[in-house]
Amino acid sequence: MHLVQPSPAPDRAEAARSMTCVVFSGDMDKLIAALSLATSAAAMGVQVTLFFTFWGISALRTRKNYQGKSLLHRALNTLLPARASQLTLSRKNMLGMGPVFFRHLMRKKNVANVHELVEVARAVGVRMLVCSMSMDVMGLSRDELVDGLEFSGAATCVNDLVGSSTSLFI
Amino acid sequence: MHLVQPSPAPDRAEAARSMTCVVFSGDMDKLIAALSLATSAAAMGVQVTLFFTFWGISALRTRKNYQGKSLLHRALNTLLPARASQLTLSRKNMLGMGPVFFRHLMRKKNVANVHELVEVARAVGVRMLVCSMSMDVMGLSRDELVDGLEFSGAATCVNDLVGSSTSLFI
Amino acid sequence: MHLVQPSPAPDRAEAARSMTCVVFSGDMDKLIAALSLATSAAAMGVQVTLFFTFWGISALRTRKNYQGKSLLHRALNTLLPARASQLTLSRKNMLGMGPVFFRHLMRKKNVANVHELVEVARAVGVRMLVCSMSMDVMGLSRDELVDGLEFSGAATCVNDLVGSSTSLFI
Repeated sequence: MHLVQPSPAPDRAEAARSMTCVVFSGDMDKLIAALSLATSAAAMGVQVTLFFTFWGISALRTRKNYQGKSLLHRALNTLLPARASQLTLSRKNMLGMGPVFFRHLMRKKNVANVHELVEVARAVGVRMLVCSMSMDVMGLSRDELVDGLEFSGAATCVNDLVGSSTSLFI
Repeated sequence: MHLVQPSPAPDRAEAARSMTCVVFSGDMDKLIAALSLATSAAAMGVQVTLFFTFWGISALRTRKNYQGKSLLHRALNTLLPARASQLTLSRKNMLGMGPVFFRHLMRKKNVANVHELVEVARAVGVRMLVCSMSMDVMGLSRDELVDGLEFSGAATCVNDLVGSSTSLFI
Repeated sequence: MHLVQPSPAPDRAEAARSMTCVVFSGDMDKLIAALSLATSAAAMGVQVTLFFTFWGISALRTRKNYQGKSLLHRALNTLLPARASQLTLSRKNMLGMGPVFFRHLMRKKNVANVHELVEVARAVGVRMLVCSMSMDVMGLSRDELVDGLEFSGAATCVNDLVGSSTSLFI
């Protein structure tokens, strides 16, 4: 009788406390929302995985490196933000003034910025995966990103999404 | 034998009928999608929670109140919509003509607008939470929003997301 | 003893391998993300449902047909993309040059485009539903879309979302 469904039980309990977010957007406001949810959840004991893809990878970029890249990749890489402070808003961007005001308001209210939130996420054990295909298409190299990342494909992402109790696309 | 997993069963049944949406976007079209899903689900007996954060709070705003606010907050509050009819589209906005056409088409097809959908949501028992941090950063006061809202932080939102069978970020 | 929870078990197992995505966005990059996840998941044995609504329906459009449509619907239909190659990016659109570069980079890296991904999705058994209300509001007719689609309302979408283990809004 003790053998009734011995394995699914822990799996389900496990799944009930896990969250996987696909971080697609590179907008400062959406990244703050994603990272705030992730760090809050991790601090509450939830097992959190963030899968950064497409523009979302901007959140992790710390420097530009054009070495060995094609002309088109260099052009694209110039346009992509290389620091959290270069991120733009999803609306009310107002030619770059929106983010300036927004960061000012957040600082006044003691809300962490994207760069700080990435550090917090790592500190509280949020697992951070980066989409290899996006890196390839956008011509980004690993040494342009923060440390402590894993690189994987869509299959890993799907496995995490299907295995988690909560899944979001941001 | 009847005691095998007595407690998880109701929890799971409960979770199987609940939906939590983080409403981040302030775009008219996305708000209509979010509120249509929420009201349809609630009408079908699903327990629905909407967590309004960042621009999504625009859906709930009915009037402007500048009293006691800083200059920067006044400026930001002027730019944020104060009525559902001032909301813009996520694309094809065409300097404000897009929403006009869109509302016209929806009215002709008897589709409810954002303001009506918020009223329906309240009537069918959708729980509506508002992110306190966003209110604080954007300098919005509670008397600018519709009645019947709860105000909470990210932790409440995470609890709802992890505890629900279905979670969306809109 | 074999009768302990005979019915919930298959349901849960079923739910544990199912994914429902609301495809709201008409941006090329978001559609590629949605379709890549969907086709990867289906190839891994996950039962996938895509519910196309609002701008997302653009991904399925192959030709324009103005017959019997009102003037406003004709105008809107002209603005909506009629081929996967007319889709724009969610950012860095650069007056239409962004998508050109993006498609070039993807082709070089052997990443499938939206049209090919829709074909792959159908081939691997992804169920594709289209929101009837959106079709009605936007004045689109079924013969403008690819074959093999189902047309349904919000209630069907909610049922799929609540019954799936994984749900995303893209």
